[in-house]
Amino acid sequence: MDPRVKEHAEIICDWSIELERDEDVVVTAPPEAHDLVVALNEEIGRRGGNVVTLYSSDEAGRAYLKAHDGEFTLPEHVLALYREADAAVHVRGDANVNEMNDVPGKLLAERSRVTKPITEERLSTNWCLTQHPTRSYAQNADMASEEYREFVYEATLRDWQEVHDSQEELREQLDEASTVRVVGDDTDVSMDVDGMHAVNSSGKNNLPSGEVFTAPVPDSVEGQVLFDKPLIHQGREMEGVYLEFEDGVVVESRAERNEEALDDLLDTDEGARRLGELGIGTNRDIDRFTYNMLFDEKMGETVHMALGRAYDDNVGEGREGNDSAVHVDMIKDVSDGRIEFDGEVVQEDGEFVWKH
Amino acid sequence: MDPRVKEHAEIICDWSIELERDEDVVVTAPPEAHDLVVALNEEIGRRGGNVVTLYSSDEAGRAYLKAHDGEFTLPEHVLALYREADAAVHVRGDANVNEMNDVPGKLLAERSRVTKPITEERLSTNWCLTQHPTRSYAQNADMASEEYREFVYEATLRDWQEVHDSQEELREQLDEASTVRVVGDDTDVSMDVDGMHAVNSSGKNNLPSGEVFTAPVPDSVEGQVLFDKPLIHQGREMEGVYLEFEDGVVVESRAERNEEALDDLLDTDEGARRLGELGIGTNRDIDRFTYNMLFDEKMGETVHMALGRAYDDNVGEGREGNDSAVHVDMIKDVSDGRIEFDGEVVQEDGEFVWKH
Repeated sequence: MDPRVKEHAEIICDWSIELERDEDVVVTAPPEAHDLVVALNEEIGRRGGNVVTLYSSDEAGRAYLKAHDGEFTLPEHVLALYREADAAVHVRGDANVNEMNDVPGKLLAERSRVTKPITEERLSTNWCLTQHPTRSYAQNADMASEEYREFVYEATLRDWQEVHDSQEELREQLDEASTVRVVGDDTDVSMDVDGMHAVNSSGKNNLPSGEVFTAPVPDSVEGQVLFDKPLIHQGREMEGVYLEFEDGVVVESRAERNEEALDDLLDTDEGARRLGELGIGTNRDIDRFTYNMLFDEKMGETVHMALGRAYDDNVGEGREGNDSAVHVDMIKDVSDGRIEFDGEVVQEDGEFVWKH
Repeated sequence: MDPRVKEHAEIICDWSIELERDEDVVVTAPPEAHDLVVALNEEIGRRGGNVVTLYSSDEAGRAYLKAHDGEFTLPEHVLALYREADAAVHVRGDANVNEMNDVPGKLLAERSRVTKPITEERLSTNWCLTQHPTRSYAQNADMASEEYREFVYEATLRDWQEVHDSQEELREQLDEASTVRVVGDDTDVSMDVDGMHAVNSSGKNNLPSGEVFTAPVPDSVEGQVLFDKPLIHQGREMEGVYLEFEDGVVVESRAERNEEALDDLLDTDEGARRLGELGIGTNRDIDRFTYNMLFDEKMGETVHMALGRAYDDNVGEGREGNDSAVHVDMIKDVSDGRIEFDGEVVQEDGEFVWKH
């Protein structure tokens, strides 16, 4: 087995989910990530944890959804599983990233709505989303397979403590800020983040990582944003998404490509029309766009905003974060824009002012 | 997709687990059974059920066990999953049937002991054990892959109602009997079955099937048996297993091959030294031995006995069945022997007397 796979499994256990003896782990992985499944089982066994692996397959998921009449009920057995779990590791690497392309968006949205309690239970564990470098994801990134493996492991197998330390300045500033403004191409948006907690994302919930993020006060978002990087929701790729906010709500929206998918997303529930996250990418080792949000949103000189649910970790006491069945990240290039905290410029043309 | 895979999934849903709307199903399958996973997801979706698929991999299981120090605890999350499940479908078809060969038997036995509550919960659902015809199982059966696929589907895709009806005579007779005696090569064993329920096995818990079975009264087994077909427990193959019983307990044992595996099995717990099942195979369409108990024990002109736990369905009111963490079937060829119920011959030289 590629020794990098073993190292990946070790980082997941020791850094990302901080596995302790006798803890119950749910690993979710596609068959294409078989080597990582084996390595994770080995490392979890070595640490005296318990593990069950769920078989993730978009092909099976698509077959299920397309055959179903859409009157979903909550799978109580899966809810019970996550209620008792201490950690959840989700491994990406499906054999075909376009497997969900012909599933109606409304069906996917309805399924997300019904299974939301499961999502909540999963996010209440020590969870980690990570990537196995499959040929399908290499193809999707316009890369050769071994080239992609190098890209993924370069970004993933790092000293995450060091990354964490290097991001603390930004986290502290964002944590203390009351308002954030992002200015760029067709973009001028501001939001309150007062009372919210900024999180230093350094390989725990997302592996790889490299971002600092917070939650906007839901009603406070004002202005417009053009998200100039493509985004994918439930297998459907959208490009050139433009949103206008008033009192925190999307009042105008369009997309250059796949606007229907954007409409379906916005119609999921009330919270899908509001922002749940503002993130600032810091990872300059992720040096190219690979059509994979787990990597793309961490790129340096970008910010991202997510429609949908806020993460509990961001929501301060006495504050309410946005609630929704979905959480969909969208990226804005700010390499020729700027970010302001409380009216002070903190990043201009992609450079943080304290790094000058 | 091979249309036989779809038909297999339909039989599992409609006949084996009798799936009803909104029921919660756990499918367990190896990646090699991917097509059946997709087909099962589709058919469960069509019937409005909920499904989660567990990733079954002996390679991952081996890696876990060999890395673990052996001080296991019960995976509470998996227990919770099965507690809420209505049905459990276990698909065999691992890529290498010998994957567990170098795992110490004591470790496997200890793991079985600790996870017994999960086994009990799973067996309290509508459960079904079935086979996907993988190349590894074809190889293990000394057959070509397509030849093996034909063998498996010939045995599996049947009118199970018809099989059920044809076995009723035998079930009634065994149900009414007080004692059973089996005589053959190096074999003369008798046991009480009074108050126990005979079950007509016709594609529900085992697919394929074709047997009638009951549970012996645990203390009543007397005599000796030479099991002349190989048997496999947790990946380890034993041959020529010979057991002698007194007051229901194995007092002498030997095996021509892999006696250590037999000793480990017998040492699992107290119940592993007693019988939990007596079965009579009826399926003449399973015309060859394929080193796979799911098929082998159903062969006509054989009986099988299992060390370990009795199935609840067999245990009559006021009776106690044998209890154990294991249930290991062993086959005896009776093509030149005989089976007696209450001193009356019911099968001689492989032929049931009522079929003459």
